[in-house]
Amino acid sequence: MTANELTIVKSTNLKPKPEKDQIPFGSTFTDHMFVMDYAEDKGWHEPRIVPYEPVTLDPAAMIFHYGQTVFEGLKAYRADGDRILMFRPEKNLERLNRSSDRLSIPPIDEDEVMNHLEELIRIEKDWVPATDGTSLYIRPFIIATDPNLAVAPSKTYKFMIILSPVGSYFSGGIHPVKIKVENEFTRAVKGGTGMAKTAGNYSSAYQAQSNAYKEGSADVLWLDGIEKRYIEEVGSMNIFFKINGEVVTPALSGSILKGITRMSILELLRDWDVPVVERKISIDELYEAYERGEVEEAFGTGTAAVISPVGELNWQGKKMTINNHEIGELSQKLYDTITGIQRGNVEDPYDWVVEVK
Amino acid sequence: MTANELTIVKSTNLKPKPEKDQIPFGSTFTDHMFVMDYAEDKGWHEPRIVPYEPVTLDPAAMIFHYGQTVFEGLKAYRADGDRILMFRPEKNLERLNRSSDRLSIPPIDEDEVMNHLEELIRIEKDWVPATDGTSLYIRPFIIATDPNLAVAPSKTYKFMIILSPVGSYFSGGIHPVKIKVENEFTRAVKGGTGMAKTAGNYSSAYQAQSNAYKEGSADVLWLDGIEKRYIEEVGSMNIFFKINGEVVTPALSGSILKGITRMSILELLRDWDVPVVERKISIDELYEAYERGEVEEAFGTGTAAVISPVGELNWQGKKMTINNHEIGELSQKLYDTITGIQRGNVEDPYDWVVEVK
Repeated sequence: MTANELTIVKSTNLKPKPEKDQIPFGSTFTDHMFVMDYAEDKGWHEPRIVPYEPVTLDPAAMIFHYGQTVFEGLKAYRADGDRILMFRPEKNLERLNRSSDRLSIPPIDEDEVMNHLEELIRIEKDWVPATDGTSLYIRPFIIATDPNLAVAPSKTYKFMIILSPVGSYFSGGIHPVKIKVENEFTRAVKGGTGMAKTAGNYSSAYQAQSNAYKEGSADVLWLDGIEKRYIEEVGSMNIFFKINGEVVTPALSGSILKGITRMSILELLRDWDVPVVERKISIDELYEAYERGEVEEAFGTGTAAVISPVGELNWQGKKMTINNHEIGELSQKLYDTITGIQRGNVEDPYDWVVEVK
Repeated sequence: MTANELTIVKSTNLKPKPEKDQIPFGSTFTDHMFVMDYAEDKGWHEPRIVPYEPVTLDPAAMIFHYGQTVFEGLKAYRADGDRILMFRPEKNLERLNRSSDRLSIPPIDEDEVMNHLEELIRIEKDWVPATDGTSLYIRPFIIATDPNLAVAPSKTYKFMIILSPVGSYFSGGIHPVKIKVENEFTRAVKGGTGMAKTAGNYSSAYQAQSNAYKEGSADVLWLDGIEKRYIEEVGSMNIFFKINGEVVTPALSGSILKGITRMSILELLRDWDVPVVERKISIDELYEAYERGEVEEAFGTGTAAVISPVGELNWQGKKMTINNHEIGELSQKLYDTITGIQRGNVEDPYDWVVEVK
């Protein structure tokens, strides 16, 4: 056995699976997890699938002090004939390595980890829920583990994959939400970590989110950190607008996460010959288009909700009601197509789904 | 006994203390640590001093995923007559609560924690090294512990204080360093978390630091994230310039950490009637002053080094040699005064030191 051969220790004490449709997001975990360690002299080593169990770390472990960490989020779905499908998982592992590069974390071998991930899903296949809208959420993450308070990259890391069965993001299907355009707080800026999926980007948004909730909004639309003018993302999703027949999404600026749902929607729209452009778009331009009655649809995109239609945008007291608070035709078609491909009900000419056999 | 009464469990297996002057920064820890937990229904509870031991967390603990965490850094010094002194520790606990506010973490009771910290230092007093330039580094930190992948503030937290004996930051006293003015990466921006001591601010700087090392610089000077023009901080220190007889330090902008050494230097300079101003200062302005021969001294300030003189600044190929690579008179006087007060050798008319009795 080499140091890079996968070892498997099965749990002898399996947990009960949650009731159908009563699955809260991200608080129930499966029986097993994947773990792999990094050391300078060994590289990534000892990949293993073990019972889900606590992590034990020195209180000086760098993850607790300097936030050197990256993560990913993707899903496995149960399709007809009890097939288990993942949606473009290789894109998540690619992005994990891009995030790691920004955070000075050594890269993983994407092909090897893909094999280990498939093995983990095979072992946990009974945990993939079947009801429409449900899935098994997959969370790979890497944490810096050196017990050292020097402000410098760690020499040791732990890579883990944990799994959580999740319910439908919106009960009863998708519905349009109210969004606050954020003017006070900043999510990310050029030269920062906005394009990386790293922990600090998320907790730094809590204050803005909390203020938005108090004002009756479900989330915030972030503007660029420099001019507070150009639209970046909504919450932790990418954002699309259909304006006068053309679909517009902010171009990747270095401070916007390169979403895999975003990428898939761009590919679908181009395939469908729907006019679509990635470019800078300011909130002023959007508001002017709104006043001319040209903003036809708006939606956020991400792994959690796939498509989250925006029914209302509030920008410093200026309210934009979009498509009469209803789901747009294109939003619905994109949602149906992507979720259909994800669940194996719609043909997948793009080879997006990977079946775990 | 109430839930807020301090309990103490002494270690039965004391570690050897490091040899004098052979103490690396932040990798040796003392025999005990302070721990306290937070739950919504109990607030902060069960303060305890226990043997230094690993932390056990669910792999879904929020600290690993969304970076909701804050920390502080301060020091205890051994003064004449074996007195143990801390330098303005109440300012660190104040700042911890300001950082927590930004990160949506519940505040601690500063007075109670100060008492617990003093008790911890009393128990570990033999760990406070005596050699000139050495001290006991104190690291309080709070981590989010809910095992939940929802992107929202945690409902439970752990507050810990760990202690590490540290050697002289610069062997043989202070000496001027080369600093690279950073043009590509950004540390922080208005509306972000730059003024908070939170993990994500530190690992996001590793790439820029690594590039600076490759170019022979010891650290980077950060410019503002918006115009890449205004000077913010050097590495994780605040920065001061003496220009034509006047001391200038960047005004706190929301993206600059409010350093306690910075604050103390401002108070000393005002007390000494040295002209000093907190204002915006651009790198262009600095370079113009340099070309006129008016930049007399430059130094970074922070808990680790107290004063770190800057001998050379490199800004996109433009090199500024400051005070002929020598320690400036004012830099030396500030260093001697502050380290003298910290070690009890210089009178402390400001009541900055707190003796642990």
